[in-house]
Amino acid sequence: MPTIIFEPTGRRIKVKTGENLLEVCWTHGIPIESVCGGNGACGKCAVQIIDHGSPVSAEDRKHFSEERLAQGWRLACRTRVERDMRVAVPLPPGVLPGQVMTAHEASDITPAPKVRKHFLKLAPATLEQPGSDANLVLQAIPGGDSLRFRPSALRKLPGVLRKAGHQVTVTVWDGAVLDVEPRDTTRHNYGIAFDVGTSTVAALLVNLNTGEEIGVAAGLNPQRKYGEDVISRISYCRSHPEGAETLSGEIVALLSDLAEQVTTSYRVNPAHVGEYVAVGNTTMTHLIAGVDPSPIGELPYAPVFTACQTMLDGPKGARLGHKPFEIPAALGAFVGSDIVAGLVALQLHTKPGTRLFLDIGTNAELLVGGRDRMLAASAAAGPAFEGVKIECGMIGIAGAIDSCGLEDGDLVFDVIGNGAPAGICGSGLVDIAAVLLDLGIIDESGRLLTRDECPKTVPPKVCERLHEANGTTRITLAGDVYLSQRDVRELQNAKAAIAAGIEILMHHLGLAPDELDEVLIAGAFGSTLDPRSAQRLGVIPMVPLERIRAVGNTALQGAKAYLLSTRLREEICGAGEHIELRELSAEPDFMDRFADNMRFGA
Amino acid sequence: MPTIIFEPTGRRIKVKTGENLLEVCWTHGIPIESVCGGNGACGKCAVQIIDHGSPVSAEDRKHFSEERLAQGWRLACRTRVERDMRVAVPLPPGVLPGQVMTAHEASDITPAPKVRKHFLKLAPATLEQPGSDANLVLQAIPGGDSLRFRPSALRKLPGVLRKAGHQVTVTVWDGAVLDVEPRDTTRHNYGIAFDVGTSTVAALLVNLNTGEEIGVAAGLNPQRKYGEDVISRISYCRSHPEGAETLSGEIVALLSDLAEQVTTSYRVNPAHVGEYVAVGNTTMTHLIAGVDPSPIGELPYAPVFTACQTMLDGPKGARLGHKPFEIPAALGAFVGSDIVAGLVALQLHTKPGTRLFLDIGTNAELLVGGRDRMLAASAAAGPAFEGVKIECGMIGIAGAIDSCGLEDGDLVFDVIGNGAPAGICGSGLVDIAAVLLDLGIIDESGRLLTRDECPKTVPPKVCERLHEANGTTRITLAGDVYLSQRDVRELQNAKAAIAAGIEILMHHLGLAPDELDEVLIAGAFGSTLDPRSAQRLGVIPMVPLERIRAVGNTALQGAKAYLLSTRLREEICGAGEHIELRELSAEPDFMDRFADNMRFGA
Repeated sequence: MPTIIFEPTGRRIKVKTGENLLEVCWTHGIPIESVCGGNGACGKCAVQIIDHGSPVSAEDRKHFSEERLAQGWRLACRTRVERDMRVAVPLPPGVLPGQVMTAHEASDITPAPKVRKHFLKLAPATLEQPGSDANLVLQAIPGGDSLRFRPSALRKLPGVLRKAGHQVTVTVWDGAVLDVEPRDTTRHNYGIAFDVGTSTVAALLVNLNTGEEIGVAAGLNPQRKYGEDVISRISYCRSHPEGAETLSGEIVALLSDLAEQVTTSYRVNPAHVGEYVAVGNTTMTHLIAGVDPSPIGELPYAPVFTACQTMLDGPKGARLGHKPFEIPAALGAFVGSDIVAGLVALQLHTKPGTRLFLDIGTNAELLVGGRDRMLAASAAAGPAFEGVKIECGMIGIAGAIDSCGLEDGDLVFDVIGNGAPAGICGSGLVDIAAVLLDLGIIDESGRLLTRDECPKTVPPKVCERLHEANGTTRITLAGDVYLSQRDVRELQNAKAAIAAGIEILMHHLGLAPDELDEVLIAGAFGSTLDPRSAQRLGVIPMVPLERIRAVGNTALQGAKAYLLSTRLREEICGAGEHIELRELSAEPDFMDRFADNMRFGA
Repeated sequence: MPTIIFEPTGRRIKVKTGENLLEVCWTHGIPIESVCGGNGACGKCAVQIIDHGSPVSAEDRKHFSEERLAQGWRLACRTRVERDMRVAVPLPPGVLPGQVMTAHEASDITPAPKVRKHFLKLAPATLEQPGSDANLVLQAIPGGDSLRFRPSALRKLPGVLRKAGHQVTVTVWDGAVLDVEPRDTTRHNYGIAFDVGTSTVAALLVNLNTGEEIGVAAGLNPQRKYGEDVISRISYCRSHPEGAETLSGEIVALLSDLAEQVTTSYRVNPAHVGEYVAVGNTTMTHLIAGVDPSPIGELPYAPVFTACQTMLDGPKGARLGHKPFEIPAALGAFVGSDIVAGLVALQLHTKPGTRLFLDIGTNAELLVGGRDRMLAASAAAGPAFEGVKIECGMIGIAGAIDSCGLEDGDLVFDVIGNGAPAGICGSGLVDIAAVLLDLGIIDESGRLLTRDECPKTVPPKVCERLHEANGTTRITLAGDVYLSQRDVRELQNAKAAIAAGIEILMHHLGLAPDELDEVLIAGAFGSTLDPRSAQRLGVIPMVPLERIRAVGNTALQGAKAYLLSTRLREEICGAGEHIELRELSAEPDFMDRFADNMRFGA
């Protein structure tokens, strides 16, 4: 059986001879892009096979230059594993260890976790001083009188106690003894925070004693094969009797895999993980809990639950050691626990000042206000800002154009990884559109001018990039990569939805853009976005640039806060009371504002 | 496949042709006696095959008279099921519906159960008044703010709510929503109380709204094949690596079977059973919880747990619908939750007056005192009072001699079921011994006189019953049934252990027998025992006869109290604080008192 070593993690997987490499990645939770489902069409499952020449398929020739082919780049979906290989799989953005673990203001939490470990040196009972094993333990723990043993811990207790000469470590969680281990293991107290996105899923391993971020594992949401966005996944649940169960099983399996990966990679005993927390949009958290999200997809878009939810033994079917698994509170059907946990991690609800918080993923969520009053909404922006539904779009991995400028009379691009451009990611899209708007090649209505209409002020090399294809205008960027009229329309739709949402929330609060003390942009997109370009497009209100700040993966930071601090946990569970959720589609002026914002301002 | 109909319950079981009838009973939890393990030796698995002549084996001829054989009596262990049959299996005592459900002072409990059902007519959420399904429900329940949904209830919620037009019944238990059902099912709110004895197990189905006892199912503890008493079962656990797991699996399977039987028999939907409670001796409750009871079998005889224990999803491997399963508090290794629950059901800890409470089963537990101070102990009396280890002993089922007198110059006997005597049960043993002591055929030292030594005052017919066999003296009672010198020694041991225990506890409290306001005798044995004979033997202190009272199955009444009343539940869980547990073997004067009590007083 051939072994594949995946770089950069070094993970080794044994496979059957002739297995399809993309399917191996799917089966084992290796994060990899694929939109077409593995038929060689989308070209997104590019991997670099490092140590030997692999056969080149017709589809490989279509997607890679000779140079890249020589470097070992292949489509995973066209690759059969015939012998041992080392494979580098580009990681999706936002899930790279360095990126996820960037410190934010939220990271200086004083650890006061729900999971606590106590090392006890007990004197065994005697005939004169009798007592049960359980009482011996509880009497030695501060506040032990009110604790109860969970059945699994009770079953371990007599054996562990006697084998360890009555020197044991007990794990306590919310009034319950979860575990008992021989000797002193108090140093080994871990939790795992999951950020479950529609596209990508990350698992952050946290030391609960110190708050240290140990490491991260990430994967693509296996539910992608049922559709790119939550609405198509809900549709699948509504139209298939076992749909919710299937989708639930897939995400729970991925969470189990990621927990295994991150503990294996960082040499943490899975038995020392005392608690799991998963944040995500409300559809994802429903599916993690095994709850059918169908009601979210029909009027009045009511979720089944929004309150903080505990699964004492973990989700159904999980391989997570039957530990407590928590889902923090959501606000509603389209503003999930990822947003709520993030805002508490940033302390937006307690800090003075007025802020706009924007999380643009497959959908966009908005929060506006401060500690006195805060409004939230979800804008159906679609996945354009993630590079999805853009003809040459891709997520921000190696090969993606992520910024654009004008140099020596022509367009110039930055490409992630500095290789040949393979597509456009969200921040690249924003940048390119802003440059083309400034040049006048895209007009205020969003029309991409033809080469004939190209303004005289535009350098000729740029005008020459314009051409017609398939009855519409395109602008060639680099190699096969282009931006089309249809892409600009997708962008307009996305930015109009977000801008209209922001306007409505600010209007309800009586706020002008200048009254915003900060604009905080969360997520991978936020960290690569050029704020000036975003303002040029009208996605972000016109505040002074220095007030715009990327705040990273606040969802994961929020999940970590939930793990680390019982106080922050309470704040997250109670946050719903402080925030008013607005359903934009029910706002009378939404359609007007949406239409207005389709235009690009001057 | 032949069908067996079991009388009196009418239960029908399909079996394979040629299957062994005793094994069928074991497999399906039909309560049946067997000590020899099914090899035709003990004769205890007597059943009556009602509707057709079944082949007669050599062992049948050894155990049954021609008349009984003609009535269809056979040994189940020698019977193969070749075609349909109706079989009457004599029920062990204490588990007959009538007997179990006898009303006691404990039965007038005002129901205030932990399991509560609420019928809700909800207004669906709207776009203007959004809210999650869970919040809709919780806002409609008094105190719902502090409730959480259990994951299984949450999974059912969206479907049930919409199918039932938002008219649903929710089941609430201890801060958690356990279940949600369409329409109004509030009338159907049940619990099951188990009394798990070393020999027999009973399941009582209770209406939690009204307190009504709906019905009972009973079976023999399948662990009997590992030994008659708890010590031999603990030994099995200590000497076999999977021993505790095996024994645990067997008792949990029986509880599941009994719950199924009692709900099926009384046409209760198992989904409407909201909670289970099991009381029993500490070894049994450990095994129900899946906890290895080995520490109980080694110095210092420490149980693993004594506090009230909850298994939210039921015991491991149980088929009980993953409902909460509670084990009430025990006092120690040999005074179990059956005793604690029983004493609270009788309110011994709150009523004025001083009492002796005696529960004689396979072992004997004692409680002495009143609301100011109460002492408890366990006496290693052995199973003689259950007819075990007595040469012609049997439990109190049809054929057992259960009382004895002197009429027309000879011994006369009452036999349960009025048939031919097949053996001696516990109360019969006490009665026979008392008569023989009065006649002087047993002397104060416990010696059974030979026919030659038979006192002149004894009627000749009685003296003629004495004879020698196997080098020891026996007295023939009826047919093959006799009492031997060895049986008297067993009886002496048992009664000496109990009497010494009572003396020690009363001594610690400074009580004389006359200061006891009542002597309460629990269990099946108590209800058939002649108190005068018991006093003659010295098992019960010499109080006026009218102060001696049989109180029935207080263990089951206690478990029922735990189900029905949150107040009584708290009293049971806290009872340990009011009761001092004495380890008799650690008392310096125990051996002296034990030796003294070997004698039969005048």
